[in-house]
Amino acid sequence: MVEHGGLNILRLNKYRRSSSSSPSSMRQKRTFGNLNIRLSSEYPKKNAEFLSGQYGTNLLLIGVALMLAISQHEPSVKEEDLLSFATGLMVLQLIWMTWYILVRHRQSSTRTERDVNATTCWIRGGLTLLAIVSLIMDALRIGYFVGYRSCVSAMLAVYPVIHATHTVAQVHFLWFHIKDVIKSNETFERFGVIHAVFTNLLLWCNGVMSETEHFMNNHVRRLTAMGFENITLGETEPLCNCTTNICNLFSESMTYLFPFNIEYHIFVSALLFVMWKNIGRTIDIDSNRKSLVTKTQGLTVGPFVGLVALASTIGILVVYITRVEGSIELRYSAISMYYIYGIVMLAVMCITGAVGLLIYRANHKPFDTAKNPSRQLDTELLFGSSVGSWFLSWCSIVSVLSTSSNPPFRWTNLVYSLLVVMEKYLQNLFIIESLYRQQESAEGGDPEMASGAEVFSVTTSLPPPLNGIVNQAFESPGGACVSMETEQEENAQVYDCQRKQSNVPLPVHTEVVEPLNIKRLILKNISILLLMCNISLWILPAFGCRPQYDNGLEQETFGFSAWTTVLNFAVPLSLFYRMHSVASLFEVFRRV
Amino acid sequence: MVEHGGLNILRLNKYRRSSSSSPSSMRQKRTFGNLNIRLSSEYPKKNAEFLSGQYGTNLLLIGVALMLAISQHEPSVKEEDLLSFATGLMVLQLIWMTWYILVRHRQSSTRTERDVNATTCWIRGGLTLLAIVSLIMDALRIGYFVGYRSCVSAMLAVYPVIHATHTVAQVHFLWFHIKDVIKSNETFERFGVIHAVFTNLLLWCNGVMSETEHFMNNHVRRLTAMGFENITLGETEPLCNCTTNICNLFSESMTYLFPFNIEYHIFVSALLFVMWKNIGRTIDIDSNRKSLVTKTQGLTVGPFVGLVALASTIGILVVYITRVEGSIELRYSAISMYYIYGIVMLAVMCITGAVGLLIYRANHKPFDTAKNPSRQLDTELLFGSSVGSWFLSWCSIVSVLSTSSNPPFRWTNLVYSLLVVMEKYLQNLFIIESLYRQQESAEGGDPEMASGAEVFSVTTSLPPPLNGIVNQAFESPGGACVSMETEQEENAQVYDCQRKQSNVPLPVHTEVVEPLNIKRLILKNISILLLMCNISLWILPAFGCRPQYDNGLEQETFGFSAWTTVLNFAVPLSLFYRMHSVASLFEVFRRV
Repeated sequence: MVEHGGLNILRLNKYRRSSSSSPSSMRQKRTFGNLNIRLSSEYPKKNAEFLSGQYGTNLLLIGVALMLAISQHEPSVKEEDLLSFATGLMVLQLIWMTWYILVRHRQSSTRTERDVNATTCWIRGGLTLLAIVSLIMDALRIGYFVGYRSCVSAMLAVYPVIHATHTVAQVHFLWFHIKDVIKSNETFERFGVIHAVFTNLLLWCNGVMSETEHFMNNHVRRLTAMGFENITLGETEPLCNCTTNICNLFSESMTYLFPFNIEYHIFVSALLFVMWKNIGRTIDIDSNRKSLVTKTQGLTVGPFVGLVALASTIGILVVYITRVEGSIELRYSAISMYYIYGIVMLAVMCITGAVGLLIYRANHKPFDTAKNPSRQLDTELLFGSSVGSWFLSWCSIVSVLSTSSNPPFRWTNLVYSLLVVMEKYLQNLFIIESLYRQQESAEGGDPEMASGAEVFSVTTSLPPPLNGIVNQAFESPGGACVSMETEQEENAQVYDCQRKQSNVPLPVHTEVVEPLNIKRLILKNISILLLMCNISLWILPAFGCRPQYDNGLEQETFGFSAWTTVLNFAVPLSLFYRMHSVASLFEVFRRV
Repeated sequence: MVEHGGLNILRLNKYRRSSSSSPSSMRQKRTFGNLNIRLSSEYPKKNAEFLSGQYGTNLLLIGVALMLAISQHEPSVKEEDLLSFATGLMVLQLIWMTWYILVRHRQSSTRTERDVNATTCWIRGGLTLLAIVSLIMDALRIGYFVGYRSCVSAMLAVYPVIHATHTVAQVHFLWFHIKDVIKSNETFERFGVIHAVFTNLLLWCNGVMSETEHFMNNHVRRLTAMGFENITLGETEPLCNCTTNICNLFSESMTYLFPFNIEYHIFVSALLFVMWKNIGRTIDIDSNRKSLVTKTQGLTVGPFVGLVALASTIGILVVYITRVEGSIELRYSAISMYYIYGIVMLAVMCITGAVGLLIYRANHKPFDTAKNPSRQLDTELLFGSSVGSWFLSWCSIVSVLSTSSNPPFRWTNLVYSLLVVMEKYLQNLFIIESLYRQQESAEGGDPEMASGAEVFSVTTSLPPPLNGIVNQAFESPGGACVSMETEQEENAQVYDCQRKQSNVPLPVHTEVVEPLNIKRLILKNISILLLMCNISLWILPAFGCRPQYDNGLEQETFGFSAWTTVLNFAVPLSLFYRMHSVASLFEVFRRV
């Protein structure tokens, strides 16, 4: 199928070459260039997308089927099988990345288009930190293997070695190639990129499964000790003694690093997915992008309240984890404390989100409709990952309203759950509106102006929002190429001669630049506060503070197995939501 | 939030009116018109989409949480609660539809844009048939209530009455309003439409749950009778005797109608979703659409093989259902028979799909890139609903490869599962490519021409695929409005003055119209054959032929509860996939 597409394009190009008879050879060449891009990018695109997308989905499904088989009591599939499968995928991805980098290196004379929106330095920096944590985890895994080497499969050593290599290579790829807009060998590269996306998704699923297994083991051990339930989960301790005496240290340290490893893989797969969507795209230059300066003046209230939230979160975490292991009264008091803390946090977040939205309602600005796969994915992921915790909340509400027992935290649970729904609703709207509003670049004058009568004649830094009225000031300088990003590679040049009118306002210096008006200041404080609150709400479940498992209310309504199944799906989604909204809110903070 | 959006638009419009000073009052009016549309459709669009989308998602999640609570052994939530919730949603939808129809009626003097791609007559016809079956179900439900009226909740009578009213009103809405492109009160209407979408999705989920419950009851009863398992599911028989003596007849007839009711709701929600996506859109005319004529000449092989498949399916269904209840040998022979039948069917389908794709590879044609939410949803639904049965297949493959037992159908199950994966892969590619290729409207001469040298000078019915070369023949007649669809309502007029170049070729009569060339004939036969095979593969699981429940292989690998959970999610998805691909293949059949 792949070769067929390629052959057709070649044949078509041959036809074009022999048939054209344009007078100017220069113009002829440019026409051919256009034609090549159009044909190779347009004809098989839809097909190639589905061809590769279906391939990737099936890879993931095989992995999930293996995991499901492993999670049974007496599994007929061993963990080694899953690890071999994952290792195979990683090796394939390594081969593809090497190939890709070599090809780029050989073509270093030709220009590579890059999507400046694809990622930012701070996201890549954050991912590098997470990758380092992943490397530490791999080291711990190898140490664990050394301790038990006499009785465990060799796969437990091969996997961390390959995973470490994979991590290093992938971080290199992220820094130098993730923004590339691929325009040659499209169908093949599509397979390569989607393979990388789904390999990372599979590693994410694997991480989530290990983390959940570990958490469930603790949870069930606790429940059994308290006489609540009588369930045995298949724990897999090796059959021999540890030879290095520190195996327990290794495996316990690993559990603290799980959350970081998990976030690393899901974020990388999101970035690679954007790269996949960009294949064969023609980029419109968004020259605003470069003028983002992170101004921090006037930031006091937001960071202060955020720090208070963060500090109290750490306190709550410690108290919760120590108390929930104790007697039933201590346990109930810990859960009640968690809900009251949550209600305060979420109420603050709801109010700040609503204030942000009201400011936007008072401050009209056209939406930026330029194509931006990265932003679109962000919004879809925000929405999609909210579903997990919305569902948890509605289950809690149903259970509170229908239960016959009456624990002390019954009604605080109800309020907490309603606030979770409300908070995500408002926060999503705030983030999405922030990301889609056109940026105030160099101007930043009174935003009230935008709704004033002279908007089209005076504020020339705003694009003309009408089809009919065309302001000459916005006409692009015909055909001039703009070189934009050469920071990382000498040969990486951005070129694009198209300039989409009404998307990209030219910076015109007609107004005095005011540093930061009051509305933007409030918005900046709101976004930093929300950011820190989201970090707090990530920390709690990531390090084991999950009252939904401990309070017993929902378990009574839905039954142990149904409720833990729901939780095991929804909690990882909810964790991802918090981390992802932190990244989005940082972007919002830079934009407003 | 809603009112805010509305107010802003009003305020903006006022500003425009007071500030404009155009000379011609005619032109002024048109500018205002443009402005209104642009501002009201563009400014809050992203926001309003998420505002309403999040609302709808939460409605569904509440419903699903209620269902999950009901499905427990001793539920604290009664079925009446769920029915009251669904009834409330249906009443709300009825109110909104009445309001919408009244407003349209009052505005009958103004033009309404319509999206001709939104649906077709035969889809609406099919839905009307399904709706009639739903009405019969409601009648049976009422009959059942009458029999047990002394001991069941009154909600069991209110629900079918409201559901019947809802069905009638909704079919009326489908026929006369589903293609409307809403351009006034956008934010409010968005809530109305999304409410309708998610109400239907909830009713679908409810139908799926009832159907699964019924099937699982039968399944567990069978397993218990054969001594395999010892599980009790909470069956809810009323506590009094039936007064009309035919209650059993009612409840048994209902189980045969479940599949139709389920398909009805999911299809309606897909259509309403397209309507929701269309709100505030500016439609490009696709004048090709009208020239679709369903030619049936030369159709022999496809329908013949399809009929054979359909007939053998009915046979297999009857034999399977009678044999699977019998002894272990009969049971095993029934399952083996099913797999062998499936392998033959799927192999035929794979081959035909592959042939179709090869024909496309030999017959280059540019892709139609015009915006078409209906088509995009079709492709996404095809892809999304494939995931269910792909996952089932991979689970089967994992289980076959890892199991220690060796039933007679072990390796046929493997081949069958691999073919299921392959068949959906190829069929999706075939359908998607068919839907995205530009149609051959009146021409239909040798399609080889499209890749020939004179393509841009001779075959004028093809659009110019180059940015640079503009053929004067394709320039639209400036500003002329084209009236297109007046079939259903006197006042429903399609108007659109924009004509997107390179998407819509004008029919130019430069070539002799050949009736049907050999390639199109093959494609037509392929699509009709695939269509009938998909109907066959829908019939089997819809009426209870589900070897995945009965063969015991996967159950051994994944455990009873995990495997039935997977099946209860994946089988409805897989059923929807088959029905949806039937609809898509009929569209393909009309297009090629």
